[in-house]
Amino acid sequence: MRWRDLKDEPCSVARTLSVIGDRWTLMILRDCFVGLRRFEQFEASLGITRHVLADRLKKLVDEGVLKKMPYGEAPVREEYRLTERGFELYPVVLSIVQWGDKHMADERGAPIVRRHKKCGNIVQGKMVCSDCGEELDPRELIVEIGPGFS
Amino acid sequence: MRWRDLKDEPCSVARTLSVIGDRWTLMILRDCFVGLRRFEQFEASLGITRHVLADRLKKLVDEGVLKKMPYGEAPVREEYRLTERGFELYPVVLSIVQWGDKHMADERGAPIVRRHKKCGNIVQGKMVCSDCGEELDPRELIVEIGPGFS
Repeated sequence: MRWRDLKDEPCSVARTLSVIGDRWTLMILRDCFVGLRRFEQFEASLGITRHVLADRLKKLVDEGVLKKMPYGEAPVREEYRLTERGFELYPVVLSIVQWGDKHMADERGAPIVRRHKKCGNIVQGKMVCSDCGEELDPRELIVEIGPGFS
Repeated sequence: MRWRDLKDEPCSVARTLSVIGDRWTLMILRDCFVGLRRFEQFEASLGITRHVLADRLKKLVDEGVLKKMPYGEAPVREEYRLTERGFELYPVVLSIVQWGDKHMADERGAPIVRRHKKCGNIVQGKMVCSDCGEELDPRELIVEIGPGFS
């Protein structure tokens, strides 16, 4: 199987990885979620070539994850903002951050923390059951065939 | 920046991607979470070369995400099981699945669904605040410098 075929795979993991499976893409999304929007900001943050960055940004725009918006005057320039579809990738990025904070951080702890405006506290994301609200443990889930199975 | 340097980056996303950032690795983890354990099962599921598969499995064992366990007798063989550290990657995999089910599935819907043993229902994972229990919206989170910031 080649990666460009993954979008046609009947598997939501494979299809999603065809959009975000490139590691630079996930690093760009990380930056989007802390507020970066401009080409030069991503370039300074990531230290990658302009060519690779432009390619990944274009792909995210093509996939509807980012949208280009004008800013400034004379000349009008463009910045990249998350779409709703893009904002919905937050659980992916936050889960990656939290696993890294727990298992890969040095002894000093997390480099970045998040304060929730609603409750005012430094918080974590917790993956719970949409029905009963219990924290989800994969050992308590049974995988069944869904309507889109082929 | 090269990918092999990412483990030294002071960013939990970068560090985690040094473990799981390869797309085949994420596909192997997807398979682990639906119960696959043996080399031949992964090979049949993914359709990748034995060389690439062996390389990715070795990396996951080296990183403490999978462990090798003996099974069978004469000859004793080895299978791959998730460690606790591996099970804790479930929110990453589930978030990827759910985004794909919502945004990348065809009109028939999700190919695979999950039933929660505790409540008996077909459920989704929901990312909520560890403190107040509200569903987390990235627009309601303020990023602050943590103890590990350099």
